[in-house]
Amino acid sequence: MKSISKTITEASDKVKETMNTAMNKSSNIVSGGGQVKDIGHLYYTDLVPWNPEGGKELHEFYQRLLTYILEFVDKTNDRNEKIVDFHHPAQLMEVMDFSIPDEPQNLDQLLVDCKDTLKYQVKTGHPYFFNQLSCGLDTISLAGEFITATANTNMFTHCMFPDYKKNGLRSLPKGLVMFASEHCHYSIKSAAMVTGLGTDNCVSVPCDEKGKMIPSELERLILVAKEEGKHPYFVNATAGTTVFGAFDPINDLADICDKHGLWLHIDGILAGCNSMNADYLFQQDKHYDVRYDTGDKVIQCGRHNDIYKLWLQWRAHGTNGLEKAIDHMMGIQEYMVERLKSMPDKFHLVLEDPECTNVCFWYIPERFRSIPHSVQKEQMLGEVTPTIKQRMMNAGTLMIAYQPQGKIPNFFRNIISNPAVKKYDIDFLITEIDRLGHDL
Amino acid sequence: MKSISKTITEASDKVKETMNTAMNKSSNIVSGGGQVKDIGHLYYTDLVPWNPEGGKELHEFYQRLLTYILEFVDKTNDRNEKIVDFHHPAQLMEVMDFSIPDEPQNLDQLLVDCKDTLKYQVKTGHPYFFNQLSCGLDTISLAGEFITATANTNMFTHCMFPDYKKNGLRSLPKGLVMFASEHCHYSIKSAAMVTGLGTDNCVSVPCDEKGKMIPSELERLILVAKEEGKHPYFVNATAGTTVFGAFDPINDLADICDKHGLWLHIDGILAGCNSMNADYLFQQDKHYDVRYDTGDKVIQCGRHNDIYKLWLQWRAHGTNGLEKAIDHMMGIQEYMVERLKSMPDKFHLVLEDPECTNVCFWYIPERFRSIPHSVQKEQMLGEVTPTIKQRMMNAGTLMIAYQPQGKIPNFFRNIISNPAVKKYDIDFLITEIDRLGHDL
Repeated sequence: MKSISKTITEASDKVKETMNTAMNKSSNIVSGGGQVKDIGHLYYTDLVPWNPEGGKELHEFYQRLLTYILEFVDKTNDRNEKIVDFHHPAQLMEVMDFSIPDEPQNLDQLLVDCKDTLKYQVKTGHPYFFNQLSCGLDTISLAGEFITATANTNMFTHCMFPDYKKNGLRSLPKGLVMFASEHCHYSIKSAAMVTGLGTDNCVSVPCDEKGKMIPSELERLILVAKEEGKHPYFVNATAGTTVFGAFDPINDLADICDKHGLWLHIDGILAGCNSMNADYLFQQDKHYDVRYDTGDKVIQCGRHNDIYKLWLQWRAHGTNGLEKAIDHMMGIQEYMVERLKSMPDKFHLVLEDPECTNVCFWYIPERFRSIPHSVQKEQMLGEVTPTIKQRMMNAGTLMIAYQPQGKIPNFFRNIISNPAVKKYDIDFLITEIDRLGHDL
Repeated sequence: MKSISKTITEASDKVKETMNTAMNKSSNIVSGGGQVKDIGHLYYTDLVPWNPEGGKELHEFYQRLLTYILEFVDKTNDRNEKIVDFHHPAQLMEVMDFSIPDEPQNLDQLLVDCKDTLKYQVKTGHPYFFNQLSCGLDTISLAGEFITATANTNMFTHCMFPDYKKNGLRSLPKGLVMFASEHCHYSIKSAAMVTGLGTDNCVSVPCDEKGKMIPSELERLILVAKEEGKHPYFVNATAGTTVFGAFDPINDLADICDKHGLWLHIDGILAGCNSMNADYLFQQDKHYDVRYDTGDKVIQCGRHNDIYKLWLQWRAHGTNGLEKAIDHMMGIQEYMVERLKSMPDKFHLVLEDPECTNVCFWYIPERFRSIPHSVQKEQMLGEVTPTIKQRMMNAGTLMIAYQPQGKIPNFFRNIISNPAVKKYDIDFLITEIDRLGHDL
């Protein structure tokens, strides 16, 4: 019996030991070594770096943070979850405490702040988010951004009229004018303002119905400007316009620029001539090859190292992976256009044959379906478009941007920029917009 | 015996069960539910969002990432760790694979990429990092940046001469000139270039020996410009100059600006008049209060929501906590100045009585100690300064920036901007610079 009793005792000890080992392992993972009690009542001053002994508590804080982050990523990728739990800004002020207190908040409150921030957040990575300026939540790129944030370094960032830098616009010939298509991004006009050229000296060149700059119009306007004694010097061509995703006919524009001695620029503006030679910041007498320094290359001083996450993402995908993603999204665009064309009673494409992944269309509620398409009907559809968007936001099930373009009234601009979007998401989009808008 | 045997079996089962429970708990924490095998051989396509079933694998990937991040934070706050494991850029190219491959890299390789990035990183949060543009690794602010990155949204960001926006600089009076101190940040000259004013039309106003703009010099230069038929319109005052941390005498400058009808600006440049009214992007017919939209307020379009981490940090510290941190750093500056003054053979302050947390000084190697201070001696000390910095970088134990200022040759500019810095870190700094430089 003694030996059996001993066996039982040993087994019992084994249980305890195993539990301890396993729990310690769990604690190791949770807190990087040792046991951690509840940290919620602690303050930032209890954590590294303010408290050099607060390493374990910091690990625990980050573990809890990661839990919330991963919950959000899971929900973002769950098609059964809403894109947004919509609250009007004033309502949001009521459910969340945005105030800046005089006294520190404890870690529990800060974690609640983080959790709530994500809770009321538009899930821009959701497969049903078709607004502009999101391409899904690339989880590798996100990892890269975490590393950049942790590294917490800065990048110190780095012609036709050489006197410009020194003497400004007055050193230039009078009446300088630039040209850009009427569909160009608004930042071009903004640049004309900021550089002191003035928006009136940025001439809008008419586009064809696909949103592409018309070369003969460009040449006509260059000649008009010359006759007026002005100095045409610059043409901004757009490769993929903001609304239609159209590509200006670069080759034709290049021929015209050659002929008249103009600078042809394709999108973006900053290019290599911004150096201020601020040698008090960017010393040339360093003990390593200063060509690797990026400080004096752009007009900002310190800036966030945003390129790192692109690098990590590119390594994860490989060039071939990125190419496949683009091909996939172009395929989804073609599928969507085909589907919308098959339902001419419910949908009208603004552009029949888009060049990029923007699909521009109106949804047609039931009461308009018997009316033949016309400019008047476009006005009516333009008027209901914001109401459909409002219903989307309140339902939180779908997000598509809308806007007018020149004389064309409000229409939906569906951007396919998330490689996680599948054909069945387009099917959902079509069904959902019909559900939300048919009775309007 | 059977009952005993049963007891043993039960105990054994209990062991297994306990192990499983504990391991599952561990796995729960590791991966948010269920068991996860090694993920190293997987690719991004095996993870959410590319693989909707890849949630657990994604959690595991982020757990490993967090391990590396916390290791880096621990090392950053360990005074026994080097600030930098210095490699010349070309060496770095050899030890790390920066290439962009055609085919995807697996998760093991990506995690190695992340780990190596942090390994070769300058630890800007290290207590012995006294260069500019880092204020330690604020672990709460870092949490805020993780949330911002995860949320992955954009902020859409927003007069004396109302015709400027439309007509550009040519609509303005001829000969506009602005004024800024000779110690102002180089971005002021850069702004003069970018806005088309021209750097020659940005007049440098002499400073006193503390780096503060001399009011009588400003008024003299305004009068000179007027006599030359120019139009003075703008004075940029600096609150805390880049090198000396000096504050221009704002009240005196304001009186002069009032008298001559000039616009007085204190630091920064963007201020409220950049709206392009790009209604195709910033619709006014939204169903919520558009005053909360920030899109048309600044010259950028989409931008990173950088304000969030400041908000979270401020909530963690409270206004009082931030005030304490500033007071602490000013105290450290006073301590450092006092210590350097007590060793006039080894250190010479460029500025005896700094106003901000910049401490500017030369270190004096042994062979120069018997020479009385003079302009010639400053030249000699300026010549050895880069060599001391080189030794710091190679040792990886200390980082302090150096630069010339006007006619003053290279000197160290020690920035106290990390609230984690203690008096004993200043003691270390003094001992270490002496160790590295005494024999030069």
